[in-house]
Amino acid sequence: MSPDRFAALWRSLLPIGRAGRDGGYVRHSWAAADLECREWFAEEALDRNLTVDTDGNGNLFAWWGDPTAADAVVTGSHLDSVPHGGAYDGPLGVVSGLLAIDELRERGVTPRRPIGLVVFTEEEGARFGVACLGSRLLTGAMDPARARKLTDRDGVSLAEAMARADADPDRLGPDPARLGRIGAFVELHIEQGRALVDLDAPVGVASAIWPHGRWRMDFTGEANHAGTTRMTDRRDPMVTFAAAVLAANEEARRQDAHATVGRVEATPNATNAIASTVAAWLDARAADEATLESLVDAVRRRADERAAHDGTGFALTPESESPTVEFDTALRDRIAARLGQAPVLPTGAGHDAGVLAAHVPTAMLFVRNPTGVSHAPAEYASDADCALGVNALADTLEELAC
Amino acid sequence: MSPDRFAALWRSLLPIGRAGRDGGYVRHSWAAADLECREWFAEEALDRNLTVDTDGNGNLFAWWGDPTAADAVVTGSHLDSVPHGGAYDGPLGVVSGLLAIDELRERGVTPRRPIGLVVFTEEEGARFGVACLGSRLLTGAMDPARARKLTDRDGVSLAEAMARADADPDRLGPDPARLGRIGAFVELHIEQGRALVDLDAPVGVASAIWPHGRWRMDFTGEANHAGTTRMTDRRDPMVTFAAAVLAANEEARRQDAHATVGRVEATPNATNAIASTVAAWLDARAADEATLESLVDAVRRRADERAAHDGTGFALTPESESPTVEFDTALRDRIAARLGQAPVLPTGAGHDAGVLAAHVPTAMLFVRNPTGVSHAPAEYASDADCALGVNALADTLEELAC
Repeated sequence: MSPDRFAALWRSLLPIGRAGRDGGYVRHSWAAADLECREWFAEEALDRNLTVDTDGNGNLFAWWGDPTAADAVVTGSHLDSVPHGGAYDGPLGVVSGLLAIDELRERGVTPRRPIGLVVFTEEEGARFGVACLGSRLLTGAMDPARARKLTDRDGVSLAEAMARADADPDRLGPDPARLGRIGAFVELHIEQGRALVDLDAPVGVASAIWPHGRWRMDFTGEANHAGTTRMTDRRDPMVTFAAAVLAANEEARRQDAHATVGRVEATPNATNAIASTVAAWLDARAADEATLESLVDAVRRRADERAAHDGTGFALTPESESPTVEFDTALRDRIAARLGQAPVLPTGAGHDAGVLAAHVPTAMLFVRNPTGVSHAPAEYASDADCALGVNALADTLEELAC
Repeated sequence: MSPDRFAALWRSLLPIGRAGRDGGYVRHSWAAADLECREWFAEEALDRNLTVDTDGNGNLFAWWGDPTAADAVVTGSHLDSVPHGGAYDGPLGVVSGLLAIDELRERGVTPRRPIGLVVFTEEEGARFGVACLGSRLLTGAMDPARARKLTDRDGVSLAEAMARADADPDRLGPDPARLGRIGAFVELHIEQGRALVDLDAPVGVASAIWPHGRWRMDFTGEANHAGTTRMTDRRDPMVTFAAAVLAANEEARRQDAHATVGRVEATPNATNAIASTVAAWLDARAADEATLESLVDAVRRRADERAAHDGTGFALTPESESPTVEFDTALRDRIAARLGQAPVLPTGAGHDAGVLAAHVPTAMLFVRNPTGVSHAPAEYASDADCALGVNALADTLEELAC
């Protein structure tokens, strides 16, 4: 696969959902840009004579071979983005899957096992708040009744968003038959750090995903006039929130883990009114589950103490929690060997592959990201590295399916 | 004036702009609810055979007597609200003005001077960020070219918002002829604290307005992935913002002043992305200008220091600053005496009366607020106290105009 061949297909997806000024992407699941990405995928799949079908959760599949046969080798990723995210997180795995099929056909190989390519829905959780929503629903890790009621920032439920896109929310839920036909899953993804840069390697293989989760933090106080309310009479939730942000940052550094507050919503959010409520979200990750629990406990304890001091309320509610994922050791060693001893590395980011790994032998490939930046427009991989990624994915599919 | 008479007119305004769930109001200038409030006012004024006209800044006037005569006695307030604000802040002064004219007519008095009733535009600054925008434009305290370019949260400029409401933004600007015809200005307002409750008095007279202002705080960092970016590699503006919120709170307590951060906007505002920027607004007030300057300087210094520590950027930009307003002493003593030695008290809140006071002998009346809450739905005054407020305003207008 040449870099130019990669670039030609890559460029055809780039205009969809580009959000203007900063070069970032806004592709939220079931919204217009996402639906356009899905159409793009279905057209590319049909151009390749792949059989396209969709499960009840909006996860799109394209098949080379019999979709109803057992022991399929499936690759894929997602097309949705975080708000103003980069171009590569998700789409690189989908584009690489299409091109890996092209590459295998040009090699003249005949797969023994069906090869599937999947686009999972709402991987980022950017619209409805639950990461890997599509794969969680498929595998039964997410209750469909709860999923239907998830709402976006405008109060639109997942059920409503699906109905507007002519999808049937009553079909949401686990699909054990489909899942049972998947014999192996491989997700190719842009690296979200600088490990491959440091190792001078274009492609790596994942060892594990750090345990991680997101927790909603609700700070409650009393709205009042910013000018006339004595400081001692205030119950200002913004102050408690600020203390919680600093506590999360300090505890993560202390415990060698990661904690981030990237989203905050104050009400009424007016310059001259003390806030009545502040909602914010804690993203926490650590190398092991004990450290993650200790980190979140410490943030909760310190926010509780500060709330008592400020006369405010504080509640911490888990929205999604993902345990450590150790990818299948035999599969990963087989792939690393096939790729000429590619480096093996862990990641702090969740992926649909992490959800699938509880059910199916699963592996991940990472493609070098020279900026190390992720979830932002500076996220990047060279066409040359992406083409090497396609070849590595084709080698992996050939190793497993042929 | 009976409490029932007050309540009847008061209730006719209540449905406009009520924002549902929390009982609060969203009446942002030039938007639908504001335009409906203006129509309500114009109809009530015409029902009373008052002459209605509008200056180039959208400030609505109704006149009992000759609008072109000099030395008018003008009362009034505003109809716009903070987001999810209370019903009384602003509208109480307008409704009381209409009823005070009814009361004077029933008393059979004949004003020597014209009596005007004004509804100022965008007093709260809730849409375009500059408090008392209408009165500042009228008096020349705000540059009309700068005003035209002010934008709301959706990027709509004041000029565009006016044009959509069939108002001509080219007419924005000072109106010295109109201002010169105003011989005295009296604004009645709900109290925004508990001083009158403590004094057991239904109505008070203002002595002064604390100096105050709002400053935009821009924190800049680098968007990145929440899961994969090492804590030491981050430039997270949310952390610097949090430190600034706590610094503002501590400095205000230390200096016996008021500081509030009630509005914050993170970008991209995603749970699993480190923010690239956080914008927030500081509202600061103090009993004297030296303390206010010292407070804002301390917040700036501490945020600068924290930004250097966090590898982020910080900028503090004044959006509006209001010096101390000492209301006309002779006028205030005359009114307090006429009202039977009503209590005289300062306020931390800005008002159009504070802007007018630089040009015209100006006074304010406050009506007791048993909750002490302001800029929130719990803001309240009893019908009985409001009727006493109408009588006090009628007494004041009679004292000055007859």
